[in-house]
This record gives sequence, C-alpha cells and structure tokens, in this order.
Amino acid sequence: MEIGRRTLIAAAPMLVAGSACAQTSQRKLGYAIVGLGGYGLGRIIPEFKNCAHSRLAAVVSGDPAKAKKVAAEHGLSDKAIYSYANFDSIRDNPDVDIVYVCLPNSMHAEYTIRAAKAGKHVMCEKPMAISVAECEAMIAACKAANRKLMIGYRCHFEATNIAAMRLAKQPDTGKIRYVRSEHGFNAGDPKAWRLKKALAGGGSLMDMGVYSLQAARYMTGEEPIAVTARESTDRTDPRFHEVEDMIEWTLEFPSGALAGCQSMYSANQNRILLMGSKGRVELEPATRYDGNRLWTGRDGREQEISPPPGPGKTQFAGQLDHLSQCVIDGREPIVSGEEGLRDLRIVEAIYRSAREGKTIRLT
Amino acid sequence: MEIGRRTLIAAAPMLVAGSACAQTSQRKLGYAIVGLGGYGLGRIIPEFKNCAHSRLAAVVSGDPAKAKKVAAEHGLSDKAIYSYANFDSIRDNPDVDIVYVCLPNSMHAEYTIRAAKAGKHVMCEKPMAISVAECEAMIAACKAANRKLMIGYRCHFEATNIAAMRLAKQPDTGKIRYVRSEHGFNAGDPKAWRLKKALAGGGSLMDMGVYSLQAARYMTGEEPIAVTARESTDRTDPRFHEVEDMIEWTLEFPSGALAGCQSMYSANQNRILLMGSKGRVELEPATRYDGNRLWTGRDGREQEISPPPGPGKTQFAGQLDHLSQCVIDGREPIVSGEEGLRDLRIVEAIYRSAREGKTIRLT
Repeated sequence: MEIGRRTLIAAAPMLVAGSACAQTSQRKLGYAIVGLGGYGLGRIIPEFKNCAHSRLAAVVSGDPAKAKKVAAEHGLSDKAIYSYANFDSIRDNPDVDIVYVCLPNSMHAEYTIRAAKAGKHVMCEKPMAISVAECEAMIAACKAANRKLMIGYRCHFEATNIAAMRLAKQPDTGKIRYVRSEHGFNAGDPKAWRLKKALAGGGSLMDMGVYSLQAARYMTGEEPIAVTARESTDRTDPRFHEVEDMIEWTLEFPSGALAGCQSMYSANQNRILLMGSKGRVELEPATRYDGNRLWTGRDGREQEISPPPGPGKTQFAGQLDHLSQCVIDGREPIVSGEEGLRDLRIVEAIYRSAREGKTIRLT
Repeated sequence: MEIGRRTLIAAAPMLVAGSACAQTSQRKLGYAIVGLGGYGLGRIIPEFKNCAHSRLAAVVSGDPAKAKKVAAEHGLSDKAIYSYANFDSIRDNPDVDIVYVCLPNSMHAEYTIRAAKAGKHVMCEKPMAISVAECEAMIAACKAANRKLMIGYRCHFEATNIAAMRLAKQPDTGKIRYVRSEHGFNAGDPKAWRLKKALAGGGSLMDMGVYSLQAARYMTGEEPIAVTARESTDRTDPRFHEVEDMIEWTLEFPSGALAGCQSMYSANQNRILLMGSKGRVELEPATRYDGNRLWTGRDGREQEISPPPGPGKTQFAGQLDHLSQCVIDGREPIVSGEEGLRDLRIVEAIYRSAREGKTIRLT
C-alpha cells in the first residue's frame, strides 16, 4: 500500500479545513452557549481555551444557579447570563457574535431562528433539526438575517477523519465501491432526552446514525440517489418505548458505490470502512472525541496511519474557530445549514423506507 | 470480558462436531472426487492424508490425461478413473462410498442426483445448486436412494468459527442484536466459470455471499423471516457482463436481531461481527482456508481468542470425516441438503428483493 504518512504530511496544508484563511485576524469572536447540558457545558465550553478565534461570551440556561456558577468560573458578568425567556434580548449584546445551540434536537429550530432574528450567527448541533421542514425554516431565517449557519459536524475538523477523506480519493484506493459505517452505544437511563420522541425526534438514527450517514457521504464524496432501510427495536425494553433502537440502511450513489450503514442504541459500535477497487481505508474507533485510529490495506488493517494535525488543537476547537473565521472572512462554513438539510432529507427517507418496506428514491 | 481461552478449552468437547461419534470404527470410506479443478484437485485431494475416516478412492474428470496423472500420484488404478460419460457406472465400484461434487454450481444438481442413483452418498460443494427447485430435486433423489447428502460448508468444521458460534451463545455476549458479515474478493479473469451465469447461476452472492449468509444464520442460530437487498454492478466491467458484482442485504430474525450482509467481486473482504447487548464477537479474516482470527470485546477488539482445535486436523479433513462418520453411524450430517436448501431459498429472495426494490418475507 503506497498510501502512507509521507503522502499525508506532504498534503497536509490541503487537508486543513481552516487553513485557506490563514490570514484571518487574531480577533476572537464571542460565543453564547445555549444549553448547559453534558455537551455544551462538559464538552464545548472547556474547548475555548484551545481556540485561536473564539471565546466564551455568554451562557443561556434554564437553570439560573448553574448558569451563574458557569459564568463565574469563566469570568463572565451577570449580563452574559440569559434564560430561555429573555434569550431574545441577546440581540442587544454586541459581545456575542455567534450562538451555539446545544439543546435537545427538537429545540434546534426554535433557537436557531430566534438567534438569527437576534442578529447572531449560529452554530447548531447535529442533527440540524427533527424534520426537513424545520431545516428549511432555519436556513431561511439565517438567510433573511444575513447570518452564517453552521452545523456541529465535528468530524470534518477531526484529524483522523480528514486524513481518511483524503486517502479515499487517492489513486492507491482505486475506484470507490463500498462504504460501511456502524455507530452506536448502549443507552442507559430510559429517562434521557435522547430516548424521548418529542425531544429527540427519533432514536439511534437521529443521534449516532447521523455519523454513519455523514461518513457514507464524506467518504464517497457523493450524494445518494436511493435508500433502503430496515429497523428493529425491542419495544418491551423501557429505553425504547418511544424511539427506535437499531436501523440498518443501504445508500446507492451515482457512481455505483453502495454504503451499508447502521446505528443502534443497544451496543457500542464506531467504525468506518471504505473499500476501493485497489485498497481500503478503515477507522475504528472512527468518530470518537479522541482515540480514533486509521488503517489502510489491500486485505485488512495492514498499515496504521498517523494523520497530520487537524485545523485546530482539537476537533472541537477546529470547529469553533472555523465558524469564527468564516464570519470574519465572509465565507460559507464547509458544513453549512444546507449540509444539515441534506442529511435530514435522507434521514426522513430512511424512516420512510423502513416503514414502507421499499426502496426510496432521493431526487 | 469474561469469555476467554479457559472457557473455550473447558467446553472443547462440546464444540467438536464429530465428537459425538468418537466410537466410530477406524474404517476409511472411499471418496470419488468429481471435478479436478482448483478446489477438488488443489484443496480437497491433498486433505485425505489428514483424514481418519476418509480416503481417495476415485476421480471423475473430463480430462483423461489429468485424471490419469492424479490417479497415478495417489496410487489409484485405472478402474478408479471416470469420465462424465461413464460416471454412472460408478455404481459398480464398491470401493466408492461417497461422491464429492466439486463442479461449477450449475452442475451440482445433475451430479448429485446421478451419484445418488448410483447408490452413493454425496458431498456437494456450496452453493448447493443454482435454484430452490434443484435443491429439492437433489434432496428427493438422495432420500429415494436412502443416501446421505451433505453440503461442503467447511466453516462448521473450522476451529475459529466453531469457537465464535459458541461465544455468541455465552451469557457474556448478552442478547444477540446484530450480525455483520462481508465476504468478497477481487475477481480476476473475466473468463472464469464463476463469472459465467450459465455455470455459476449468479455472481458474488452465489459464491462469497453464501459465507455471509451462513455466518448470519450460524452466529444468530436463527432463521430469517425477511430479507431486503440492493445490488450494484458496473456492467461495463468485462468481469461483470453476466453476473453481479456487489450485493448488500439485511436479514430480520424472529428475536429482533438484524444481520447486515454483503458480498462483492471487486475487493477483498472477509469479516464476521456479532454484537450482543453485553459483548461482541469478531472474526477477520473470518472464513479463509487458514489464518482466521477471533476477538471478543465490549467496545472493539479487546481480547484475541485462540480457539481449541476443531474436529479434524484441518477444516477440510473435519468436513470429509464428518460425512464418513455420519455414513458409518447412520446419522444426518450437521450441514445436510436441507441446510443448503434453506440458503438457496434466502438467496432467491435476496435476488428478488434487489430486483423489486422491496422487502421479501420468508415464510
């Protein structure tokens, strides 16, 4: 296998999503984090220290005590604390450039639209929303307000995945024939919002399935033309009274490549495999917060690849700074609202295919 | 993960398919090998030296010079050489107990039926035949002649797969939720019989796909109730003018488990993964002639397992001796004609599902 470290390192500047705007000023844009749950508080806020162009400027929470504590820890004044009730007044806070929506899925549309109307750029967690209609409304609202909209597809800023995307396109891989991606975890507390239909909009597909779907799209570089899906859920399991456990789906691409994807909430899976006519690219774990690994080979995991650094100190910092840079430079994010909308269109078709037991064409 | 070497070794006697008839006499049954191609000549004939209950007794070939050479090399007289024209006279050769059909798929039915009518037991290579109707005729012919019929499903005699089947059932694996199996190789010569519809009956599904299908069935221990499939083939590729390259299919099982399976003729794949609610079992390569590897884990390949020995010195010897022992003891083979028929029923449904773009119920 000729795909190796040397090739990747030589090509590194092309890999780095944010590097095209290396001329960006050192100004740091202010983020308001909406939702102080596990992801917003536990994962995103600690990442501002790794950012070159982004800083924490405000927090939005339904829990005043928690918000006050977080603000104090990060040197924010009381004026930088918002509730869901007074969120719209964030329009009057010039210190906030970008609103990052880290809420349950069903609240993404509302807070993205309110943020845009308040004149703020928006980073919205994935899945973008729980329906195509919501996605379209979010895009329209940001367009009307002339604000950027980016979806929190962190893998586009993660070094291993960036290297894998590049390897997929190398001549040594040959013609891309097949992508396999499986994502899942063993869900715990049946009361978690992810297991409530009204909040999550769906089950494993809405959450982990989006990683499998994204992987199929960014590894092939193609848009699917048809989807065929099957679902299986043990409805007697208290975790799955409202949402699905497991979905398996096949995507068909214009080149003739297929992608076999899966998501589940009853076991841990995290893998991407691309089969080309000459070689393969494999990641396992593929899309974790850290520890992802990458191999190439003709017939298995023959060569482990150490990818060159991604665009940020971490994938999270790279993602946060990408939107800041896009705002500063007036560019569109590489994972825009349109990208999130594309996924939701496919997600809706996957659910429909599983329900109707037939292939759904995507046109 | 508590599934380990110790557990497997302690359980080894239960794993060994042929061990229930350890009282079998040391008599060696005579095999006639029909078809001196790569598999019959290159793979099976050299295995008789590893057998306890089986020996080479005759060869059947359309190439007299080759047959004479092989016979001489193995100490067989000219009377042990048959052509396809005089094959039926094998009925008069008491030295032949079993006929092993190693011909292209489309000839399996004819030679199985002729062998049964000649009063011989039959080992038939996989796939059993190219249609359900042929399988049924083969079973009927062997039944009418009161002869055993076994299909060459060598993985049931391969130590790694036997260990994996056992691990799948252990409490440490939990409830079986999901099996993934991918089998393929990069087909070479477009003139190979495997790429001719009339001889092979189909493409990768008929060949490597049967391994994926078998794996889904023997790992879950269940019979599928529905299948949903998609196919993709580059018909401009000279290898694929007549048969399919790639098929992806989903099987649904009564327990709610799903199996996502794949076969292809345009890249090398050989993998089985079983996900239980508590742990996983993974093989890669999974079903090769040798070098298969096995891991358990909760969240990846955490513990490599060295399986206890299989029933024979090799999987091939174990397979050959199993039928000999079944003949001697009057038992049914663990992979009988009915087992081959089950696979062909599913294979036909996979093709139909791919053609019609909808889920096919298996009843």
